[in-house]
Amino acid sequence: MASSPEIIAVNQAEPPFYWGLDVGGTGIKIGLVDQVGQTLAFEKIPTRESEGADSAVERIGDVVDAIKARLGSNGQIAAAGQIAAAGLGAPGPMDLPTGYLVAPPQLPSWWNYPIRDRVAERLQLPVSFLNDGNAAAYGEFWLGSGRDDSSMVLLTLGTGVGGGIIVDGELVNGVNSFGSECGHIVIDPSPTAQLCVWGGGRGQLEAYASASGVVQRTRQRLTEGADSSLSGLLGGENTELTAKRVYEAALKGDELALKIIDETAYWLGIGITTLVHTLDPGSIVLGGAMNFGGVDCAIGQRFLAGIALEFKNRTFDNVFAGTTIKFANLGADAGYLGVAGFARHEHTTKQPAI
Amino acid sequence: MASSPEIIAVNQAEPPFYWGLDVGGTGIKIGLVDQVGQTLAFEKIPTRESEGADSAVERIGDVVDAIKARLGSNGQIAAAGQIAAAGLGAPGPMDLPTGYLVAPPQLPSWWNYPIRDRVAERLQLPVSFLNDGNAAAYGEFWLGSGRDDSSMVLLTLGTGVGGGIIVDGELVNGVNSFGSECGHIVIDPSPTAQLCVWGGGRGQLEAYASASGVVQRTRQRLTEGADSSLSGLLGGENTELTAKRVYEAALKGDELALKIIDETAYWLGIGITTLVHTLDPGSIVLGGAMNFGGVDCAIGQRFLAGIALEFKNRTFDNVFAGTTIKFANLGADAGYLGVAGFARHEHTTKQPAI
Repeated sequence: MASSPEIIAVNQAEPPFYWGLDVGGTGIKIGLVDQVGQTLAFEKIPTRESEGADSAVERIGDVVDAIKARLGSNGQIAAAGQIAAAGLGAPGPMDLPTGYLVAPPQLPSWWNYPIRDRVAERLQLPVSFLNDGNAAAYGEFWLGSGRDDSSMVLLTLGTGVGGGIIVDGELVNGVNSFGSECGHIVIDPSPTAQLCVWGGGRGQLEAYASASGVVQRTRQRLTEGADSSLSGLLGGENTELTAKRVYEAALKGDELALKIIDETAYWLGIGITTLVHTLDPGSIVLGGAMNFGGVDCAIGQRFLAGIALEFKNRTFDNVFAGTTIKFANLGADAGYLGVAGFARHEHTTKQPAI
Repeated sequence: MASSPEIIAVNQAEPPFYWGLDVGGTGIKIGLVDQVGQTLAFEKIPTRESEGADSAVERIGDVVDAIKARLGSNGQIAAAGQIAAAGLGAPGPMDLPTGYLVAPPQLPSWWNYPIRDRVAERLQLPVSFLNDGNAAAYGEFWLGSGRDDSSMVLLTLGTGVGGGIIVDGELVNGVNSFGSECGHIVIDPSPTAQLCVWGGGRGQLEAYASASGVVQRTRQRLTEGADSSLSGLLGGENTELTAKRVYEAALKGDELALKIIDETAYWLGIGITTLVHTLDPGSIVLGGAMNFGGVDCAIGQRFLAGIALEFKNRTFDNVFAGTTIKFANLGADAGYLGVAGFARHEHTTKQPAI
């Protein structure tokens, strides 16, 4: 299949340039980003997990070659030498020092694969390697909601809860490549606390604040007989009751849906208290698909206010006053932009592994 | 009062030298430390809180002058110019950027005092300023239990629970000077959870894992009629039942005392899970007076094993395997050594404020 990348006109591209490669379970995003964060070219290709990792690396290389050819022919970039490095984000668990994917559940046939070095060989560039949560955090920190912050914590609310932590401009990647796994902080120690659907431990934030957690709690209340416009979804396919449906019901004033969203805010307020008392980042950014309409929607605003209220109840006045909780604003682009930015950061501060 | 500092013979003092000043509610420790961490001179003076902060700064200056005179006359240091900077640790809340003590409960008449700059003026040296918990953490990281670690979390178990976090060699001081306040992470969200005796929020680690928390829980069980050799202390003065007494009873096999220590380990295991899933530091160091005999005592070993067991139950195998939980080994010296080391770090990496 011939690649047809989107070429984006920018007024003044500022070299050097960096590839941002964001590998997920269903799609791979490939962007070429300049040093002030402008995207010069972008393409998303299917992951095709079952075809294996080598095939995906080859297809990434094909897109990269196609973009280079297109940009070279229209004069956007003068030479391949203006591309300094690549950033690569992928789901964990991974081993950052050796550049291996270890056992990502979304990519079962790619386990124990030296993805960083294979991409480096194909692209003939140094590659900076990151966990996808930290990649998105770095994107929001560089170009998004946290662009004016010195430190920042991102919580991504999606099927699970991911996270990324930046302290004084540096990512917390961890000694075992397990830093910033904020979805796995313990918020309820009870032996009967909620179990994470993804196999994490009991009572961890992910079980309460993810879209899966929202569905799980809604299903439970409906089974217990709660009166709600969502009841009709209970008997249907397991896939019909979603966090998006809960949000839509809340928009129409459904009391159960509003209660579930308020509870989600409550649990996030507890988790955020713990993260702030550990890191005092000044800035908490909420990303991921589950934003209940975001800052422009009354439900999103209610969600944010509920989180802030619980945090206020549990922290000190000056810490509350010195902390901002806000929505992310790069959406699904945060990952490829973040790894491009991290490659730029490593390229300008140290020499990454090739 | 003439100062009579202890002068310590070292084989080969390595300049430059750094003052380590550790200000506490009852005493102030003053050490002169060389660049490999050897202490050349040391004195502890009373804080005399009620006499005011200016008086204490003056008395610190007198000790510093006396040490310089003594070391100069015996040839240990060639010139005052070999002393490069000072580190200053104090209890929070504080404002690190401006160098103010804000409202330390132990120092009620010193609130809103510009201690960093006053010390800098008196000593005519740049001063690096730290929270006491972070100071102790930096001491253990530089010279103590964490000396071989790249990242580390210290939990100090004393009257309260303090903390200090180092990520890739850098302290987490926080945007509001409230970083590393690990005693304030939430480990029990219940509305009836334990309240911290120091006025922190409900259900926070400090309420469960401090000496005060241990006493509080022991008192409660005794009041409920628990059978224990400690019962005799219940009717006495409030000061008679201490964490040390609980430890001594445990040494003699008292079942309630052992149960209280096991519970403390359980709560710490939960808190440590959260800290590791946030920071993945590879190393957790337990400092403070409440160490139940430490690593050479069966009770201390049982305490450590209990913490590790709860952590193991709640984390992933590779994260458990890649994390060490151990006791601190600098004792009460960690603070002044830590600020001296931090002054050295700032002096060699950036210019601190004078």
